Amino acid sequence: MIRFECDYSEGAHPVILDLLAKTNLEQTPGYSEDPYCEEARALVRAYCNAPDAAIHFLVGGTQANVTIIASVLKPYQGVLCAETGHIHVHETGAVEATGHKALALPQTDGKITAAQVEAAYLKQKNDGSHEHIVQPGMVYISHPTECGTLYTKEELTALSETCRKCGLPLFLDGARLGYGLASPGSDLSAEDVATLCDIFTVGGTKVGALFGEAVVITNPALQKDFRYMIKRQGGMLAKGRLLGLQFIGLMKDGLYEALGKKADLLALQIKDGFAAAGCDFLVDSVTNQQFPILTRQQQEILGKKYAYSYWQPVDDGRDAVRFCTSWATKEEDVEELLKDIQNL
Amino acid sequence: MIRFECDYSEGAHPVILDLLAKTNLEQTPGYSEDPYCEEARALVRAYCNAPDAAIHFLVGGTQANVTIIASVLKPYQGVLCAETGHIHVHETGAVEATGHKALALPQTDGKITAAQVEAAYLKQKNDGSHEHIVQPGMVYISHPTECGTLYTKEELTALSETCRKCGLPLFLDGARLGYGLASPGSDLSAEDVATLCDIFTVGGTKVGALFGEAVVITNPALQKDFRYMIKRQGGMLAKGRLLGLQFIGLMKDGLYEALGKKADLLALQIKDGFAAAGCDFLVDSVTNQQFPILTRQQQEILGKKYAYSYWQPVDDGRDAVRFCTSWATKEEDVEELLKDIQNL
Amino acid sequence: MIRFECDYSEGAHPVILDLLAKTNLEQTPGYSEDPYCEEARALVRAYCNAPDAAIHFLVGGTQANVTIIASVLKPYQGVLCAETGHIHVHETGAVEATGHKALALPQTDGKITAAQVEAAYLKQKNDGSHEHIVQPGMVYISHPTECGTLYTKEELTALSETCRKCGLPLFLDGARLGYGLASPGSDLSAEDVATLCDIFTVGGTKVGALFGEAVVITNPALQKDFRYMIKRQGGMLAKGRLLGLQFIGLMKDGLYEALGKKADLLALQIKDGFAAAGCDFLVDSVTNQQFPILTRQQQEILGKKYAYSYWQPVDDGRDAVRFCTSWATKEEDVEELLKDIQNL
Amino acid sequence: MIRFECDYSEGAHPVILDLLAKTNLEQTPGYSEDPYCEEARALVRAYCNAPDAAIHFLVGGTQANVTIIASVLKPYQGVLCAETGHIHVHETGAVEATGHKALALPQTDGKITAAQVEAAYLKQKNDGSHEHIVQPGMVYISHPTECGTLYTKEELTALSETCRKCGLPLFLDGARLGYGLASPGSDLSAEDVATLCDIFTVGGTKVGALFGEAVVITNPALQKDFRYMIKRQGGMLAKGRLLGLQFIGLMKDGLYEALGKKADLLALQIKDGFAAAGCDFLVDSVTNQQFPILTRQQQEILGKKYAYSYWQPVDDGRDAVRFCTSWATKEEDVEELLKDIQNL
Repeated sequence: MIRFECDYSEGAHPVILDLLAKTNLEQTPGYSEDPYCEEARALVRAYCNAPDAAIHFLVGGTQANVTIIASVLKPYQGVLCAETGHIHVHETGAVEATGHKALALPQTDGKITAAQVEAAYLKQKNDGSHEHIVQPGMVYISHPTECGTLYTKEELTALSETCRKCGLPLFLDGARLGYGLASPGSDLSAEDVATLCDIFTVGGTKVGALFGEAVVITNPALQKDFRYMIKRQGGMLAKGRLLGLQFIGLMKDGLYEALGKKADLLALQIKDGFAAAGCDFLVDSVTNQQFPILTRQQQEILGKKYAYSYWQPVDDGRDAVRFCTSWATKEEDVEELLKDIQNL
Repeated sequence: MIRFECDYSEGAHPVILDLLAKTNLEQTPGYSEDPYCEEARALVRAYCNAPDAAIHFLVGGTQANVTIIASVLKPYQGVLCAETGHIHVHETGAVEATGHKALALPQTDGKITAAQVEAAYLKQKNDGSHEHIVQPGMVYISHPTECGTLYTKEELTALSETCRKCGLPLFLDGARLGYGLASPGSDLSAEDVATLCDIFTVGGTKVGALFGEAVVITNPALQKDFRYMIKRQGGMLAKGRLLGLQFIGLMKDGLYEALGKKADLLALQIKDGFAAAGCDFLVDSVTNQQFPILTRQQQEILGKKYAYSYWQPVDDGRDAVRFCTSWATKEEDVEELLKDIQNL
Repeated sequence: MIRFECDYSEGAHPVILDLLAKTNLEQTPGYSEDPYCEEARALVRAYCNAPDAAIHFLVGGTQANVTIIASVLKPYQGVLCAETGHIHVHETGAVEATGHKALALPQTDGKITAAQVEAAYLKQKNDGSHEHIVQPGMVYISHPTECGTLYTKEELTALSETCRKCGLPLFLDGARLGYGLASPGSDLSAEDVATLCDIFTVGGTKVGALFGEAVVITNPALQKDFRYMIKRQGGMLAKGRLLGLQFIGLMKDGLYEALGKKADLLALQIKDGFAAAGCDFLVDSVTNQQFPILTRQQQEILGKKYAYSYWQPVDDGRDAVRFCTSWATKEEDVEELLKDIQNL
Repeated sequence: MIRFECDYSEGAHPVILDLLAKTNLEQTPGYSEDPYCEEARALVRAYCNAPDAAIHFLVGGTQANVTIIASVLKPYQGVLCAETGHIHVHETGAVEATGHKALALPQTDGKITAAQVEAAYLKQKNDGSHEHIVQPGMVYISHPTECGTLYTKEELTALSETCRKCGLPLFLDGARLGYGLASPGSDLSAEDVATLCDIFTVGGTKVGALFGEAVVITNPALQKDFRYMIKRQGGMLAKGRLLGLQFIGLMKDGLYEALGKKADLLALQIKDGFAAAGCDFLVDSVTNQQFPILTRQQQEILGKKYAYSYWQPVDDGRDAVRFCTSWATKEEDVEELLKDIQNL
């Protein structure tokens, strides 16, 4: 079975394993207070050109999302997000577990707009019963989105301006940020993200690390006592240097960008393959997740050899499925898949 | 600087790194639904001879404690624990963050007794205002305790019987279980722990792994839907096999026991050294943490060469400090320390 | 200003005030453990012919909803409800504050169907990532709904059967139950509600009391330790007899039914008046809330003399508004309003 | 049975019932946005000479405590309090239900000192593992305390200064404030309380009202969006004017002070009676709760005629019990009790 099921099927890029092995018996202080984490923080700051950002390392994405959201919001506030947002549909209520409501907005291709945010903000604020309604307290977007699409610089700028006007910190979930920024379809840089967002993550788990998400807090008002929040939410890794070392590996020598680029290009080959075979797509993704629409028969044929994810029904005979590449995807596997697509 | 500061200063035992490296590019399903986790579960079950136990793997100790406690308790219930219990004093309110009170009991050498548990249970139950008082809903103990002591089989049996009589699930936090069971001062086996407790953890982070705690749920009534709880609490590791592989490493060929034994013996040498130098001890620990009482001058001298933890003031001129060994402690470092102690 | 704005503009029915005055200086135990509450419990049980139901009295509706929901759900479960459900839109995230997600379903006239519930239940259960999705754990409906409509006996029976099949306790929020059961458009009795639901409330606040909601728990599995939950949620009234006395007043001599009937009939007169004036309605309500659609000019004219609630925009020139009667509405006020409607 | 069991055995002072009856059929807006609440707010501000204070009315004490605490604290912060504090021992974990830890300090006669607060603050702040320890975020005291004692002006001033130095808002739970300020043993005024505390409550439930606690927020930094918190915590009373009317009754013509004074004087007569009969006391209370220590035989004799509260065992043959007066206590009942005490 060749797996295109998700982007966390393999371990880590060899550079990272090497770093872990090389430093294995060194003794360092715990809880990310070691020199490796310090170095990694500097590299992440350089990566997004945000010299004053606070950087923290967490093990996983849900943990990062929840710690951030619970840190930013007041008890009676909620987080605006797309109705397809990961925090709303795929985190088993982890946000609600901290006492906050996910305020879901309709989405197009996984994205929400500045106009929607402003409308939601004003609707609550101007409602006669506003004190009976959860107050929007921040905005959550994912980039790439859960369906592989990207915000343009114009869209993100508009969101950012609206958020600042409304006093809503903008949080970008970058679990797949590497695949987003490296895409030929992207006009955003890491620096743009740092400038336009108040807080965001740089995902390692899906982009070459064993695990790890870097939290970047550019808004100084949100930086205080974040380590308390990490511990309170159960996310303080004892051997914190493991996170630092991995981000050193990713951030050095452009590895993070290179891994993203590789996966995106392979995904776009797969996309072209399905298109050439006459398949429709659920959405026009330009990153490492592709959502072709297949007949039951096509699914069955491909399913014998490839693992992919069922996504959603489309019409009577067809469903959208997900093929996902990663930093570790082998070119020969893609070539084989392309041949099999051709023969569908 | 030679570090005796804690038992999470180094990486992982080489066996574990090898396993990670060897399997690195394999493709497996995520979220601990892979064959390695399956194998690890079987090994943990065998380790404690609990063939029907449910086994889950979590990244860290606070995460494990909180997920377990929030899973067991009803909203109006709290968890009885020693006033020195990790959940009460060193987890930044992570238990309270899930809506539950830690019901702290006075302790002796970090331990609580069956009699205390029964008294606390009856006090609440028989109080005229019992509905206004948090209901004890489970019991938390750590073994070894936070100060390195151990429950005897007699003590744990008494606790277990009382807990079952009172309907209070007994949860043993085994973050350092390996160091507890391997101690010459222990009369408990892993099977005893599994038989006497309803739920417990087998700590990997401090006993040879990069990270990882195995949650063992022997009480069938507590097994349902635990994976939902893990995800809700932000503890579901995407590349879950990393946890499985590490526990395979620890559980195979008696490695877990061997690592525990080694650290304990080195710690007891340090204990003997301090005793020979005429030092008192805060507590009579038989495991890998030792708590000699040192004068300021002694602390200063040792502090130039060794990292250790300040623990608490004892009297005007002296403080208790902690020297901690681990699976990775080098014998030559202990020998050097022993010489320096002799010269104090 | 004549107020048709809501059904909590006035104090209490004189019978209730008399009871409070008559017993004012009596001494009774606190926290609803007095003989009046005991009597009231018996009366509520008789009212809905549920001799084994557990009855509790709470001060307000949000408090009752939250206490019930937090009592029924496991931490990783959420409550299915209409997207217009009070708990989802008008309680400032009180449900989420207890760690649970409101799982909103599309609604028609404020109602959800058995088919929707079953579909939502199966969708989560059969999803490959079901452990990453909040598990539906109960169903919340309001009756009358937030827009004055009623479930038919057939609809409620279907919901009840589906809920039992899926293992989802059915909770009916009866904040306006009196107006629902007394409506000429209702084919449900209080006994039907008790038979078909696992837990429901009998609203006093809006139907003649100063305040007070009776919680009726017919499902024995949900009865345990509910008083602990009340205290934990801050809802245990010190002078609990105030609640008992009010429900004695409401439940005796058919007062609750009579008050509901009166308000409904006056509301239906208003409805007829607006219909005769050629107004459309947002929804075909048969209870004490009516939602005519008015032009801006009509709103302005009526707004000079009457308080009513703005509801929502309908089209360019018109909005839905709410006129609400209550047990205290004066017939002459309705007559005056009808005249003014005629002259619109 | 004559009840000296607690101070919430009766209804309300007749002045309050009259106000409720007189205004009963008036129509006012809900949720405390009516003119009566406005008037009551002005009266409370005048009562404590705090013209800029924000005033809110809540139904009960636990509700008030929890809403205040959850409103002030950040998620990783806890509330310092006496180990006998109501929030710590008698609210079924309502504070923890909002995610916060009660940080209990040893007490003397129910009180904590400025020195204790500063020490606790510094201990956490200066601990090497401070990020692993709940951060003190505010201070809770009750005045009178749960055992009837009072802070002196000097003590409260010291607490206030320490709190301000440490950045810890000081919250005074005044559930029995009326009995505190009216005591001959008090050297504090309502204005002192308002000046020295950041937030406090003026208890109505136990001092003449049917129910109701006024929350007084003198610290402007704590005033924002408090009404959202009230609704989120389920404490927004629909017919909010009921609270306003009751506080109008209490605050006008010195009724609140008069009721407090009356109850205190009767309690002190009872105290003198027990002292004359040779009884010891658990604590030297100067307010409406008295804690004589009685033999089993004395308890039995008095128990035939009087309801009082069992408090705690003292020595082999004796227990402390509580006799409690209130605004409603009849002088003839006290006289009868005094005679019976004399005959013990």
